[in-house]
Amino acid sequence: SVNPDLASERQTASFCVEQLTALLDGGAEQTRIRRAVVDAIESDPVFSRENQYFQTQNERYEAAVKKAVHLQKKMHEMGWTENGPEYKYIYRALSGDVAFLLHRVFMRSISVLGSDKQIAKWIPLATQHKLIGSYAQTELGHGTYLQGLETTAVFDTATQEFILNTPKISAMKWWPGDMGRSATHTVVFAQLYIHGKCYGIHPFIVQIRSLQDHSLCPGVTAGDIGPKMNFEHIDNGYLLLKNVRVPRENMLSKFCEVQPDGTYIRQGSQKINYFTMTTVRISLISDEILTPLMKACTIAIRYSVVRRQSKLKPGEQEAKILDYQTQQEKLLPQLAAAFAFHFVNDYLQDLFNRGYREIQRKNFDMLPELHALSSGFKAVITQHCTAAVEICLRACGGHGYSLLSGLPSLYTNILASCIYEGENTILLLQTARFLIKCFMAASAGQPVPPSVTYLAAVKPGKCPAKNKLDFLSPDIYSEAYQHVAVRLISSTAAKLQDLIQSGVKKHDAWNQCTVQLVQAAKAHCHYITVKNFAETVEKLETKAGIQKIMKHLCDLFALHGIFSNTGAFLHDGYTSAAQMDMVTASYLDLLAVIRKDAVPLVDAFDFTDKSLNSALGSYDGQVYQRLYEWAQKSPTNQMSPAYERYLKPLLHNTLSKL
Amino acid sequence: SVNPDLASERQTASFCVEQLTALLDGGAEQTRIRRAVVDAIESDPVFSRENQYFQTQNERYEAAVKKAVHLQKKMHEMGWTENGPEYKYIYRALSGDVAFLLHRVFMRSISVLGSDKQIAKWIPLATQHKLIGSYAQTELGHGTYLQGLETTAVFDTATQEFILNTPKISAMKWWPGDMGRSATHTVVFAQLYIHGKCYGIHPFIVQIRSLQDHSLCPGVTAGDIGPKMNFEHIDNGYLLLKNVRVPRENMLSKFCEVQPDGTYIRQGSQKINYFTMTTVRISLISDEILTPLMKACTIAIRYSVVRRQSKLKPGEQEAKILDYQTQQEKLLPQLAAAFAFHFVNDYLQDLFNRGYREIQRKNFDMLPELHALSSGFKAVITQHCTAAVEICLRACGGHGYSLLSGLPSLYTNILASCIYEGENTILLLQTARFLIKCFMAASAGQPVPPSVTYLAAVKPGKCPAKNKLDFLSPDIYSEAYQHVAVRLISSTAAKLQDLIQSGVKKHDAWNQCTVQLVQAAKAHCHYITVKNFAETVEKLETKAGIQKIMKHLCDLFALHGIFSNTGAFLHDGYTSAAQMDMVTASYLDLLAVIRKDAVPLVDAFDFTDKSLNSALGSYDGQVYQRLYEWAQKSPTNQMSPAYERYLKPLLHNTLSKL
Repeated sequence: SVNPDLASERQTASFCVEQLTALLDGGAEQTRIRRAVVDAIESDPVFSRENQYFQTQNERYEAAVKKAVHLQKKMHEMGWTENGPEYKYIYRALSGDVAFLLHRVFMRSISVLGSDKQIAKWIPLATQHKLIGSYAQTELGHGTYLQGLETTAVFDTATQEFILNTPKISAMKWWPGDMGRSATHTVVFAQLYIHGKCYGIHPFIVQIRSLQDHSLCPGVTAGDIGPKMNFEHIDNGYLLLKNVRVPRENMLSKFCEVQPDGTYIRQGSQKINYFTMTTVRISLISDEILTPLMKACTIAIRYSVVRRQSKLKPGEQEAKILDYQTQQEKLLPQLAAAFAFHFVNDYLQDLFNRGYREIQRKNFDMLPELHALSSGFKAVITQHCTAAVEICLRACGGHGYSLLSGLPSLYTNILASCIYEGENTILLLQTARFLIKCFMAASAGQPVPPSVTYLAAVKPGKCPAKNKLDFLSPDIYSEAYQHVAVRLISSTAAKLQDLIQSGVKKHDAWNQCTVQLVQAAKAHCHYITVKNFAETVEKLETKAGIQKIMKHLCDLFALHGIFSNTGAFLHDGYTSAAQMDMVTASYLDLLAVIRKDAVPLVDAFDFTDKSLNSALGSYDGQVYQRLYEWAQKSPTNQMSPAYERYLKPLLHNTLSKL
Repeated sequence: SVNPDLASERQTASFCVEQLTALLDGGAEQTRIRRAVVDAIESDPVFSRENQYFQTQNERYEAAVKKAVHLQKKMHEMGWTENGPEYKYIYRALSGDVAFLLHRVFMRSISVLGSDKQIAKWIPLATQHKLIGSYAQTELGHGTYLQGLETTAVFDTATQEFILNTPKISAMKWWPGDMGRSATHTVVFAQLYIHGKCYGIHPFIVQIRSLQDHSLCPGVTAGDIGPKMNFEHIDNGYLLLKNVRVPRENMLSKFCEVQPDGTYIRQGSQKINYFTMTTVRISLISDEILTPLMKACTIAIRYSVVRRQSKLKPGEQEAKILDYQTQQEKLLPQLAAAFAFHFVNDYLQDLFNRGYREIQRKNFDMLPELHALSSGFKAVITQHCTAAVEICLRACGGHGYSLLSGLPSLYTNILASCIYEGENTILLLQTARFLIKCFMAASAGQPVPPSVTYLAAVKPGKCPAKNKLDFLSPDIYSEAYQHVAVRLISSTAAKLQDLIQSGVKKHDAWNQCTVQLVQAAKAHCHYITVKNFAETVEKLETKAGIQKIMKHLCDLFALHGIFSNTGAFLHDGYTSAAQMDMVTASYLDLLAVIRKDAVPLVDAFDFTDKSLNSALGSYDGQVYQRLYEWAQKSPTNQMSPAYERYLKPLLHNTLSKL
């Protein structure tokens, strides 16, 4: 039975929930396929995550390996293939709680970086799981700065082998997933030396464990790096190599080859490889970032209409906490952000598909723009969504702090996305470098890529809004965002030039501008997100109330951004204080409007109870009952030796009844 | 041997580290006593936290109980008493990793709420640990809103007993520490009913477990609420009562008594009790909030001078990451905040001590101000410091995400402080209510408490700063903060009045202003923090470089607050855009200045390696070595059954050598 406080929220939806779900999935047929995959996975007890919050790191690892092995069988059974329409829903249905993800990266790196011969040898072995692969790039001492990796691979012409070594402790491979305990093979990135000359970083296939008994190979020291904030199911590992020899054929050689006599040959273009790196940042947005945020919104919003606390009106029943303006102000902007980033992700996917087609035609013109967008958006979206999940967690008070709410693990999981696949600050500075370059070009009348043409059309002006309703016009707020982006980029470019002209060295000047460059890059991405959201809404069908509610969310996202960052808009007087008060008024009005549809909106995300795995967020809203039943199963409710050992001796001389 | 990259940072300190430590401790004698306590605790292997990051919740609980029992012995051995000078350092030295903290709250509640007879009976039993106490207030359905608690206590004149019940699931006690597994007794808060009439919430001593065999008493259902983000060592519990009878003498009756015939008598003043609740919020700032932030700063800053990544100048060695402006901008404001809040905590402690003396003289005039300050500062400091610890964690990249860095547990620990002892949003709204009331009074020419007299002296004006150096004047920035606080309080008061005058009901109007009321309350606390920091710096002795570096930190704290919230200062033109650019310039300049003293500043916090418990933050800076050694001890490096069960069958048909 559904909690009546939740049920009543569903009766007043202003739009058709099922149609919004289809919109998010990209069509009703996609919804059908996704649900079939979710059903198949969730009805299989091997994939259950029910005990997840009670398990140790060791137990989580074992379960993840079990699931990974079982998944092969399942896919065969269900007729799912890697190229089928179901494939992309599997990982989401498993909530990522499965091993051998790096095995896929191992395979991809061979496919992309390997010669045809290498592909022909290794890919079938990997596909049939006759080995378990990993990908060993990051070292203890180097993450972001790949050129600084210290592992060495010295070519020995006598034996036709590369000799791999970890010359010092900071060169130890550190973090590679599946490597701590599972992998038999890995792709090691190392500085290639031939005849004493360094040729930079290259990838080598290295066997690290025996295929007979799984013992470490000679010269290999490897293990698990221990406890982390999350990803307990993954055996992130370390790897030390001491004179480990691999045959010449094990250097992945699509782009570079070492010939038997030690001659180094670079062949083909590495640009496509560079492109692969940037696509990874885009590909993770959907499953790793948006799904956790949507889950967190679902949990926090459902809980907020079931939780009643204190009174809004004297003499009445206690109020649902979502009826408090402060609670709306915490949660509804996060919900709006989930949609904003969902739609900008569609935009980025389209752009990257287009880029991929161009590159196949050997046209690499789009690369700098794609790189800048993927870097900036990866950083902005991960940062924004991580903060959003944390807000959802805190908005649920004490119950949000219990692992059983599901929110702590969503938070600690999404937090990692700010760090992996490029540290966010570094990425934003790469975007900023592109923006400064484009701004200079645009100022000089040169052509610039489509996403930054707005830099050429700088007009001073003032915001034309005359009343609070004007701020519900996408033109008004999109232009305000555009104005801020241009101002931040141009003023930082000017500061940079001034410093250089005053004699500061170029790299020092750059460093002295980085705090502002980061702001500029964020403003650029924020502008594109708002503009894209507004354009998407315009194109939606008007029926079933979808366009109307999406318009409200778009307005809310845009006005929340202004309200939270008023200084950027007030600074040069583009927006006046009176206009800012209109923004505030419109923004607060919108909260009350969207609050009415909050539950139907999260229902449209269409998460099953099993996928939420939350005592607070279930579809029926029976929060307290679930918390109690779940807590009783905790291992902390088994007998503890602490009583016999410490409490009994302490209490032994007390009277029987006080 | 100290990592040379860390050692070199200590050679250029602009001030005497030992003198700053003494300043923070409140004198060199205090430093001596604190160090003696830390030495005694850390040299005792029972108190070791070495394996903490590897332990399960069950293991953590057992260790915490062991430590609590051992601590009694230790205190006796060392001659430490509850009234001695060492006492306040014990909890900090244990890093809070000990059981029976609620036993103290149990005792305090009896001391404060109990009659002399009750105190005479229970306090000696509790002191000698002949029972283990807990404190059962929060329920599944009610935290913040105490009046809504649902547990009932019905007086039975026939038997002279109270009959306690949990009438529905939401009434179950939930969260009380030490109650899940340890406690034999607890103070239960319940709605008192006599002859069918409800008299509101009252406290009752209830035995929940047998003193003979620790089994649950008849009618009692209790257990552990399961896994949480942190506090694994605490057995937060649940409690269901079914017709549990306690004698009439068990209702704590300093302020209210039920006579044998059921006559209810209220006696004495409850105001002192109200005061006790507010002091708890202040008392937790030092150990629960500032210590974790100072530890996080120590870890992140030491790591940032040892970690080298990428190049600042082409051709040079890789740079220490603290030399990047963006890294300075992440960490140094957090360091400044640690000092700002340390000093405002001193101010609050003084104020509360004064308040306590007044109250003992039956003068309750200070109570509303003290309540407003304790609520607002609890919220502002916990929120600010939680965000700060998260920034420190993220600033350490992947290594910060490892539990071995110590940062994840500092973060998940401090995060709870935003929720417990009053949810922050609710607390800020209580402060706001006080501010609005005082603003109205001040506007009407009535006297107001000292901390808000500035509300009476509203002057419009403009910021007089003419160049960036002017913004290093405490008068300039303190006045800017004051101006913003007054503006936010007065404009929200005006909005509230407008709404009410336009016919909106009072409670609706209040709700519609709450987002802005929260902003106003924060601005008030921020202003007091800045003003107090500036006044503290002024009073410091000029010798040993202490005043100078503290002045820099005060400036940084103030300017960071403006830089991060420019809109509040620009809104009504008090600060112009040109002045805001001066703020930015001065702020960025300060980062480079303070960066030089960053390591000596965190050294002055004087944390031992054992108390930091971090692979990144040790005094010698041997980060990579420590991570590696520590990871090897992880239980995840023991043999897993996953190999025999899943990997071996998978790999069994592979060739021995590929």
